[in-house]
Amino acid sequence: MSHNTFGHLFRVTTWGESHGPALGCVVDGCPPGIEFTVAELQHWLDRRKPGQSRFVTQRREADAVKVLSGFMPKDDGETLVTTGTPVSMMIENTDQRSKDYSEIARRYRPGHADYTYDAKYGIRDYRGGGRSSARETAARVAAGGLARKIVPGMTVRGALVQIGTISVNRDNWNWENVADNPFFCPDADTVPRWEDYLDDVRKAGSSVGAIIEVIAEGIPAGLGAPVYAKLDQDIASNLMSINAVKGVEIGNGFGAASITGEENADEMRMGADGNPVFLSNNSGGIAGGISTGQPIVARFAVKPTSSILTERRSIDADGNEVDVRTKGRHDPCVGIRAVPIGEAMLACALADHYLRHRGQTGRL
Amino acid sequence: MSHNTFGHLFRVTTWGESHGPALGCVVDGCPPGIEFTVAELQHWLDRRKPGQSRFVTQRREADAVKVLSGFMPKDDGETLVTTGTPVSMMIENTDQRSKDYSEIARRYRPGHADYTYDAKYGIRDYRGGGRSSARETAARVAAGGLARKIVPGMTVRGALVQIGTISVNRDNWNWENVADNPFFCPDADTVPRWEDYLDDVRKAGSSVGAIIEVIAEGIPAGLGAPVYAKLDQDIASNLMSINAVKGVEIGNGFGAASITGEENADEMRMGADGNPVFLSNNSGGIAGGISTGQPIVARFAVKPTSSILTERRSIDADGNEVDVRTKGRHDPCVGIRAVPIGEAMLACALADHYLRHRGQTGRL
Amino acid sequence: MSHNTFGHLFRVTTWGESHGPALGCVVDGCPPGIEFTVAELQHWLDRRKPGQSRFVTQRREADAVKVLSGFMPKDDGETLVTTGTPVSMMIENTDQRSKDYSEIARRYRPGHADYTYDAKYGIRDYRGGGRSSARETAARVAAGGLARKIVPGMTVRGALVQIGTISVNRDNWNWENVADNPFFCPDADTVPRWEDYLDDVRKAGSSVGAIIEVIAEGIPAGLGAPVYAKLDQDIASNLMSINAVKGVEIGNGFGAASITGEENADEMRMGADGNPVFLSNNSGGIAGGISTGQPIVARFAVKPTSSILTERRSIDADGNEVDVRTKGRHDPCVGIRAVPIGEAMLACALADHYLRHRGQTGRL
Amino acid sequence: MSHNTFGHLFRVTTWGESHGPALGCVVDGCPPGIEFTVAELQHWLDRRKPGQSRFVTQRREADAVKVLSGFMPKDDGETLVTTGTPVSMMIENTDQRSKDYSEIARRYRPGHADYTYDAKYGIRDYRGGGRSSARETAARVAAGGLARKIVPGMTVRGALVQIGTISVNRDNWNWENVADNPFFCPDADTVPRWEDYLDDVRKAGSSVGAIIEVIAEGIPAGLGAPVYAKLDQDIASNLMSINAVKGVEIGNGFGAASITGEENADEMRMGADGNPVFLSNNSGGIAGGISTGQPIVARFAVKPTSSILTERRSIDADGNEVDVRTKGRHDPCVGIRAVPIGEAMLACALADHYLRHRGQTGRL
Repeated sequence: MSHNTFGHLFRVTTWGESHGPALGCVVDGCPPGIEFTVAELQHWLDRRKPGQSRFVTQRREADAVKVLSGFMPKDDGETLVTTGTPVSMMIENTDQRSKDYSEIARRYRPGHADYTYDAKYGIRDYRGGGRSSARETAARVAAGGLARKIVPGMTVRGALVQIGTISVNRDNWNWENVADNPFFCPDADTVPRWEDYLDDVRKAGSSVGAIIEVIAEGIPAGLGAPVYAKLDQDIASNLMSINAVKGVEIGNGFGAASITGEENADEMRMGADGNPVFLSNNSGGIAGGISTGQPIVARFAVKPTSSILTERRSIDADGNEVDVRTKGRHDPCVGIRAVPIGEAMLACALADHYLRHRGQTGRL
Repeated sequence: MSHNTFGHLFRVTTWGESHGPALGCVVDGCPPGIEFTVAELQHWLDRRKPGQSRFVTQRREADAVKVLSGFMPKDDGETLVTTGTPVSMMIENTDQRSKDYSEIARRYRPGHADYTYDAKYGIRDYRGGGRSSARETAARVAAGGLARKIVPGMTVRGALVQIGTISVNRDNWNWENVADNPFFCPDADTVPRWEDYLDDVRKAGSSVGAIIEVIAEGIPAGLGAPVYAKLDQDIASNLMSINAVKGVEIGNGFGAASITGEENADEMRMGADGNPVFLSNNSGGIAGGISTGQPIVARFAVKPTSSILTERRSIDADGNEVDVRTKGRHDPCVGIRAVPIGEAMLACALADHYLRHRGQTGRL
Repeated sequence: MSHNTFGHLFRVTTWGESHGPALGCVVDGCPPGIEFTVAELQHWLDRRKPGQSRFVTQRREADAVKVLSGFMPKDDGETLVTTGTPVSMMIENTDQRSKDYSEIARRYRPGHADYTYDAKYGIRDYRGGGRSSARETAARVAAGGLARKIVPGMTVRGALVQIGTISVNRDNWNWENVADNPFFCPDADTVPRWEDYLDDVRKAGSSVGAIIEVIAEGIPAGLGAPVYAKLDQDIASNLMSINAVKGVEIGNGFGAASITGEENADEMRMGADGNPVFLSNNSGGIAGGISTGQPIVARFAVKPTSSILTERRSIDADGNEVDVRTKGRHDPCVGIRAVPIGEAMLACALADHYLRHRGQTGRL
Repeated sequence: MSHNTFGHLFRVTTWGESHGPALGCVVDGCPPGIEFTVAELQHWLDRRKPGQSRFVTQRREADAVKVLSGFMPKDDGETLVTTGTPVSMMIENTDQRSKDYSEIARRYRPGHADYTYDAKYGIRDYRGGGRSSARETAARVAAGGLARKIVPGMTVRGALVQIGTISVNRDNWNWENVADNPFFCPDADTVPRWEDYLDDVRKAGSSVGAIIEVIAEGIPAGLGAPVYAKLDQDIASNLMSINAVKGVEIGNGFGAASITGEENADEMRMGADGNPVFLSNNSGGIAGGISTGQPIVARFAVKPTSSILTERRSIDADGNEVDVRTKGRHDPCVGIRAVPIGEAMLACALADHYLRHRGQTGRL
């Protein structure tokens, strides 16, 4: 990964801030002949869109994606086919409230990257979070929409498994629930508990963190590499690149530290269809950096939104001590909208490794 | 990261298996004028060396590093100075027991990468773990020895903070303890508990996982980038590339999910010396992907060694169901030796970002 | 270079075809604090614009560049300052004549990439040249506009030195002439000769090739590297990536093959100002892959436009033998407009190496 | 290309100076299952070896290549099979004459990179050319030995076509001659002329330049990309990275500038076997950056060796004006040994693009 590009053969470069005219991405290396529609891409973007419930930021953006290059239209007037050249996608910014930034321009909001931007660049786009705005992730979701089509038979899904101190009951996991609530929650019983909990957080002007789980199914064995192009490593890198993510784990993750080798080993048998089957999936579908053919399972932790209504102690760019309270639109749990973003980043990692594996080995 | 190289300006390529004549690395992009000695590098390698206690594998290797290129000797006959050209380092394999691999060559050890190697490549070096051998990490430690010298004033240290179900008491943390026990344990009281616990594990032919914490001090604010070259992302990627690592977190990591924005915010004041000070370090020294100037703190989880003496169910390359018990030298907690490896990988990430920051901004 | 990106620290990714809604580029890694105006960028684009004389294609495009990200506006309402995040630039396509492409869609135009596109991708955007359209180079020129500002004191200029069989007289070289004729010709005496010659070519529906020379002055000694990041290598790569370029040379180039070591050596003396001076510049300002401090001199050859009005023998996608005559707007010497493109690509290579040198050595 | 690595999927990293203990390369990304022998690799190295005639440097090196990793031996005791992990190869330096470098350490030899090394790094390995030594190219030839095996059916050959002012007669071209003379000359009639000419040059302590042509046959149509991963661009980059190369051209190269579109077009017909045939190969086998299926043809110019026995004016590191005459082993035409190097670099570019094409499109 370098600068604003990730991926090696399926390469995604994103650009844009929340307060410029637009943001977008360039997907380079996409195989030719992939059919898609703008409506399909828009479906994924709509899942990430703000303003869809009281539990996320009230910023209102259409988040309408335009595809600018890299395709030929089919005669149906809707289907586009990739040509193998770069696919450029753009999303215009439409809800840029003009307001007075003079205060925020000089004061470092605790938990934000204000201070570090100034330390790094000596200049900072203080309007709406600049490059660190959550809006940047719209471009990732658009790229993920293409990435979902690269590995034949792949399905990528995600769910929120923890908000603050309340986790889902995994015994109740039902993928069909995920679309039926504003939390991407797979456990119907947890939904009302999260509603009450987050309403309290929201009313207090506070925020909480969250944990997201993303799963890819239909991945052939063999993607990845033993050492520095490990599939788990590139998934971790992709997920850790999402704003506010502070931890990533694969399979049983940190839990693996506490158990024995006997418990951890995923034993194998031959299935009725003559293919190997694993009797457990502690590995999260990756052994020695290479996919096993089991579902790929990853989780990541998102810290609580730094924008809160309680004053916190800070300094300004002139070295004065100040107290800062973040005004404006408030997002009590930024982790919720991280679900579709995590899915997109997982899909991109797998698309890239699929092409890399095919390139090196010719075995796909 | 691509294939067997990591880093962008400070680039490390490693090569070698446990049963070839040697393994090593090429460090490319090292600044000119860095002074080092082979003895210094050897010091770091010796900390990783197997066979130093009954709690790690009994393989005996000198792990003597040779420096083959990229330097000019000084007149003292000991000090080498980098010239800016690639530094090639090599470690010869000396304890390759010749034995009959015919059984292991066809049987997939559960938890190992045997099955996935065959799935990927259709061929596998089954002698001693091949490329996935822990020996590969010797090359990383050698590279880390150079990386430690790139950022002026940087110190990188690590410690084991959990073995199996037993964690250290952080109130007892004393860096001076780390060198005094076979576990890199910072808490003297935990040492005897780990000894007893691991003796039991060892005698049972079992294994357990571990959690390692690595910390870098003396890092200037400004290293990293806001989106895809985030410092935390590249640290996570580097740590996740270590064998058997299943999870990585920065600062309070997964713990951030459970707390509020008020609790999580690292407040700032002006220090007596006129520099900003943070009142906490939940961020682990990184905000918005960029270093804050506080210590960089990362943790990673290592799964239990897959080589255990209890038989586990598996299959062989011909699709027969078999039971596999791993013979040979046994390593009850591979996480112990991961401490110097984690330090090296953290040092490499920071060296790379130091050069990248200097390149883009000229601000160092 | 990979896919549609070039550069290592100053990275340019371009996208777009001649017949989509737009084309553009993302410049990633630009240092923060660089001041520029859209008018400045437009100045460079206008030099490349088609339709400015009868000697180039009559396609009419405004080629108006929009800057979408990566900057903060200054109070003067005109100056933009880079923030260190990606600078996205876009140029809308406005002169897309709707016409019947059914014939060209199946027939391979000799000398064009039609056949090779189909061989590679199995699908091809046959509308106006697709990705291989000369319009793609507008994005390079925009990126070059930023690149010109990275190396303090650098000036990059270019001139056409040969059209078909007629070369300029180098004794008449005057940079001020370049802007005064439609050929970027530095020799006023050659201009009328080229006019007559190209009028004949144009009336015959034919085309001819050309040679372009680009020169960068004000480059400090030390940019580049001894082996695979040679400055001359990356300049050659950048120039060879321009459409229709078939050869590149540095300094005396192919001429170096015919002379002796005595003639070729650029001798050195100390200048009156205490700095080294070279008594000749056969090296083109690069020795051992590293800049000497002399002007960087490169030349590249552009083949004759493949679109000609004479029928040529070819085949179609169904394997039928056909005769193809290229209809539509005709460009008698595509090499003319390659001058500003070559300048841009040289500027990009130097900007990248400036940052790389600063990153590795800290010596700038 | 970055630093000391080239290639994207078939990646070669070289390291080493002429006066360290060894030099070598790491080939990363090599497909698994490629069979080779050390003897085969040695065959290519022997063609490059110095000291084989009076027309090249008299340095005597065994140039014996050792393969250190990335393979499994077959039972025949000779054949090695790649496993897909990095192939590390090493060549020990054996003819390092110990001598007094004190004079050369401070004086800049004209035409050498002495001055630019100091300008870049502030330190320089002045022993035998350091990293810029022609010995570095032994590593490239070793890597090329593997690269030759990646594209099924590919043959790469090269020949010297010009020494100083004397070119071969292309009508006499016979590949079988190339191995029968010390010049890799394809034209038997030219051999005695070159012998006389070079004997004069050698006796005068002078040197001359040369032009080399390299050709790859058996390349499928479709390798490369339209814009920045053009096959011709990466070939040019690879060839320009060879020491002392000042120009590169593809197909008719600079000659394309002087002819018309009618003359330049490679017309197509259907062959008797139902495959397309081209009636000429001005394009050098590449159209629009993508291989056509015709032979790939490239040429490169090598400047005269800078080490000559005539004194030239220069300066030293202290700014004194000095006269420098290069003592020691003398190489009247370094271009001769560039033939196997050029072949290797062409083979590496094609191997890389073969894997990249397979990765993106799956069409191989």
